[in-house]
Amino acid sequence: MSHDEDQIRQLISQWHRATASGDVDAVLGLMADDATFYVAGGAPIRGRASFERNLRELLKSWRVESSGDVQEVAVSGDLAYTCTHLKVSIVHRSDAGKVSTRAGHAMSIWRRSSEGRWLLARDANMLAQVQ
Amino acid sequence: MSHDEDQIRQLISQWHRATASGDVDAVLGLMADDATFYVAGGAPIRGRASFERNLRELLKSWRVESSGDVQEVAVSGDLAYTCTHLKVSIVHRSDAGKVSTRAGHAMSIWRRSSEGRWLLARDANMLAQVQ
Repeated sequence: MSHDEDQIRQLISQWHRATASGDVDAVLGLMADDATFYVAGGAPIRGRASFERNLRELLKSWRVESSGDVQEVAVSGDLAYTCTHLKVSIVHRSDAGKVSTRAGHAMSIWRRSSEGRWLLARDANMLAQVQ
Repeated sequence: MSHDEDQIRQLISQWHRATASGDVDAVLGLMADDATFYVAGGAPIRGRASFERNLRELLKSWRVESSGDVQEVAVSGDLAYTCTHLKVSIVHRSDAGKVSTRAGHAMSIWRRSSEGRWLLARDANMLAQVQ
């Protein structure tokens, strides 16, 4: 496994851990300023500041549990893409019986920053509700 | 606009035209052998041969009309990604009143082949039904 691939896999693990622990600043540190999040059937979330507002709002009432398989990492120059299969549950903080789970694939674009760190740049979320 | 970006935009236009005219071989010529198509809430279509079976089956009864905006093209080394907003209708061949339309974003990964041509390698389809 190349150093770049290894680094990107570690960032994905950090993303899961930081989201689970509600460490919004750590999650924001993994993405580019202009990170864009595309979802099926909805408007994209454009920019880290918009993502932050959404995540902070969500985390007021819910905690997030996520896990997944990284099925593919490919790197060329300063771009990389990953394909993952994810399972993401949100659990209500004051009523643990209130759970909503989505599962499916995500495809992400990573960009090497001028300081040499990989940052999430684009994310295509194809998760669907699990009954 | 770089030569690579221009080439990729032309491939996307060719994709729309070839799909509309039912020229399956031309569509297949735009993608890599291992092209993988991810969709929300369903299993991915893995490989050009699987894509071909699905498209030939669809085109027996339906024709496809698609259009879209290429919102972003970024290239590094032998990888590129595009973000597009698409509208895709399928119209029944024997009953033009039978139409189903989906719209939304798609994010695609393009790979430069050993012969120097760009080919579609991965596609994340986030289109949703339009009422």
